[in-house]
Amino acid sequence: MFEFELQAICPQTGARAGRLATPHGWVETPVFMPVGTQATLKSVPHNPFLLEMETQIILANAYHLYLRPGTALVKKAGGLHKFMNWPRPMLTDSGGFQIFSLNSLLKISEEGIKFQSPRDGAYHFISPEKAMEIENDLGADIMMAFDECLAAGVTEAQTRESVAMTSRWAERCLKSHARPEDQALFGIVQGGMFQHLRELSAQDITSLDFPGYAIGGLSVGESMAEMHKVLDWTVHHLPKTKPRYLMGVGTPVDMLKAVITGIDMFDCVIPTRLGRHGQAMWLNDRVVLHNAKNREDFSPLFADCTCYTCQNFTKAYIRHLFKAEEQLAGTLVSIHNIHFLVHLMRDARQAILKGQYGDFLVERGLDSLFSENPA
Amino acid sequence: MFEFELQAICPQTGARAGRLATPHGWVETPVFMPVGTQATLKSVPHNPFLLEMETQIILANAYHLYLRPGTALVKKAGGLHKFMNWPRPMLTDSGGFQIFSLNSLLKISEEGIKFQSPRDGAYHFISPEKAMEIENDLGADIMMAFDECLAAGVTEAQTRESVAMTSRWAERCLKSHARPEDQALFGIVQGGMFQHLRELSAQDITSLDFPGYAIGGLSVGESMAEMHKVLDWTVHHLPKTKPRYLMGVGTPVDMLKAVITGIDMFDCVIPTRLGRHGQAMWLNDRVVLHNAKNREDFSPLFADCTCYTCQNFTKAYIRHLFKAEEQLAGTLVSIHNIHFLVHLMRDARQAILKGQYGDFLVERGLDSLFSENPA
Repeated sequence: MFEFELQAICPQTGARAGRLATPHGWVETPVFMPVGTQATLKSVPHNPFLLEMETQIILANAYHLYLRPGTALVKKAGGLHKFMNWPRPMLTDSGGFQIFSLNSLLKISEEGIKFQSPRDGAYHFISPEKAMEIENDLGADIMMAFDECLAAGVTEAQTRESVAMTSRWAERCLKSHARPEDQALFGIVQGGMFQHLRELSAQDITSLDFPGYAIGGLSVGESMAEMHKVLDWTVHHLPKTKPRYLMGVGTPVDMLKAVITGIDMFDCVIPTRLGRHGQAMWLNDRVVLHNAKNREDFSPLFADCTCYTCQNFTKAYIRHLFKAEEQLAGTLVSIHNIHFLVHLMRDARQAILKGQYGDFLVERGLDSLFSENPA
Repeated sequence: MFEFELQAICPQTGARAGRLATPHGWVETPVFMPVGTQATLKSVPHNPFLLEMETQIILANAYHLYLRPGTALVKKAGGLHKFMNWPRPMLTDSGGFQIFSLNSLLKISEEGIKFQSPRDGAYHFISPEKAMEIENDLGADIMMAFDECLAAGVTEAQTRESVAMTSRWAERCLKSHARPEDQALFGIVQGGMFQHLRELSAQDITSLDFPGYAIGGLSVGESMAEMHKVLDWTVHHLPKTKPRYLMGVGTPVDMLKAVITGIDMFDCVIPTRLGRHGQAMWLNDRVVLHNAKNREDFSPLFADCTCYTCQNFTKAYIRHLFKAEEQLAGTLVSIHNIHFLVHLMRDARQAILKGQYGDFLVERGLDSLFSENPA
């Protein structure tokens, strides 16, 4: 189980295609993983829409599910897959990122983190061991180590201490993980915007035998230049034989660029967040439904799109739904956005398998991405 | 077009089964028609969910669509069917009921109604002729006459005047209806809770040659006793050869009872309204998802239900979605509720065709409905 098969490396670019075996089926990479934070994709019924668009794997968040409905309940339901009726692979984030974003974070110690629930004020303590217990109870195919996530702008000294603790926590996660035969635990490389600390973290984490490795501490809003610095410092330290997951990144061009550097997996809340706000994604373009020019536009969001939304509905109708504040509005645009990102990675994979990922980028006018990183 | 074929009258009860030809296919009666006020069913993607549960016909509201997105836009899209991509029959309500519920209603005259849009304060004037123009532009298979809807508690004298004006307006609607070959215009019987005025209105309206007749002025919250008084006073005045539509009624037992009196069509917002508030409907029962007893209940909403929601999800999961304030919560319960009502009428129809609608009611413990109205 969890064997990662590296299927191709594109000679034009160095981009990889592979596949990871999980208890709920293969995950073929590169892959975009939509985020279902609370065991549901915001505004999108996962059945049938995500199933039909061939979404391979979705995320849920251990921190959110631990607080509500509670891990015991999900375990009693038979795990996350059964609880939400999702038959394909799943990944749970440990919740570190969410906890470190809390205003009610009380104390970080070597042992773990104490915080208050923002909902009811109750006290909680999460250690690496507790995080593993939670993720074991949730039962996703892939689970993430519990790491310390730093805010932007921290000092080199703080980051160095944090990287060291994250490494010790990673070891504790690996030791306390109770179901390694059913669930693959991925380690996470941190280190902020410091090259030597990224390298140190990558060496530390890859010295532990995880079945996959993630790069954390980047997310929506990071500049592309910063993201690529981090990738340059980090990726070549990751073993070629294991999947590589860039956490929180999901804008189209960022993903296409990161694929060149050898990243296999991505997740991001951007397709549902933009969807709910009426922004339909495309490679280097967006349709903003609220714009008046869409009022009498009886064409689909994008003429070349094969998604459910574009096959069935017009800009004028979807704009009406937004103006009328009807739920279907966000549902339709979220479906389009997820479909676009899922299929973008699927198409990239096909190009890599043919050894033509460079051509794939050139055809899309992205020569610059490609020429900056010759194979 | 619009021929109504009376297929069976149940010898046990007098209940009718029939079918109405429309430009978008047959409507088999008795039928429950879900309400898509703003050209979308609240929280339910009509495609695929309503299509797959075999919903035959849905409603939209001319008043709402006139104000937003505007009738001209829908006409330009090719009519309501194309605008919202609904391939089956549709019915538009004229909007009388909505306009008469406005606080910003300014003046009712013989000519029509002047009101201010509650959204932007703009002045509007709707006459019977204007209402027909709007419904002609929307292009539904069935459209409703523009009638005066009285508040509860008005005097006999006021009701008498109103019935007379509604009759004159019905005649004006019939005269100004521009597309009788494409759209069937139904007349509406009013008369409040006054027997002689209901009878007068029924005689007036049926003296005009509409392809179908509706009973208005009843809706959610009416006592069953009052509803049945009105049906007793009215239905036997309606021609047997034309469809009969009881507007705004959609609770299960009310519909089953009304079917005995010879009603063919129903609509109600109750399945989506209750759905969004976490109440799942059944014949004489409801599941209230917020109740704590559902927290660890891993069974479907109703064990015998064949709907998408009950086939795929548990009470515990749907309750979690409500607690987490996720959109999918209302979507799932609304789908269950609509499915239940659509299939209740479909099953009633099958029983009527077999001449066993009395047995159908007895099997469901509704002997009282039946025995009160022997054939």
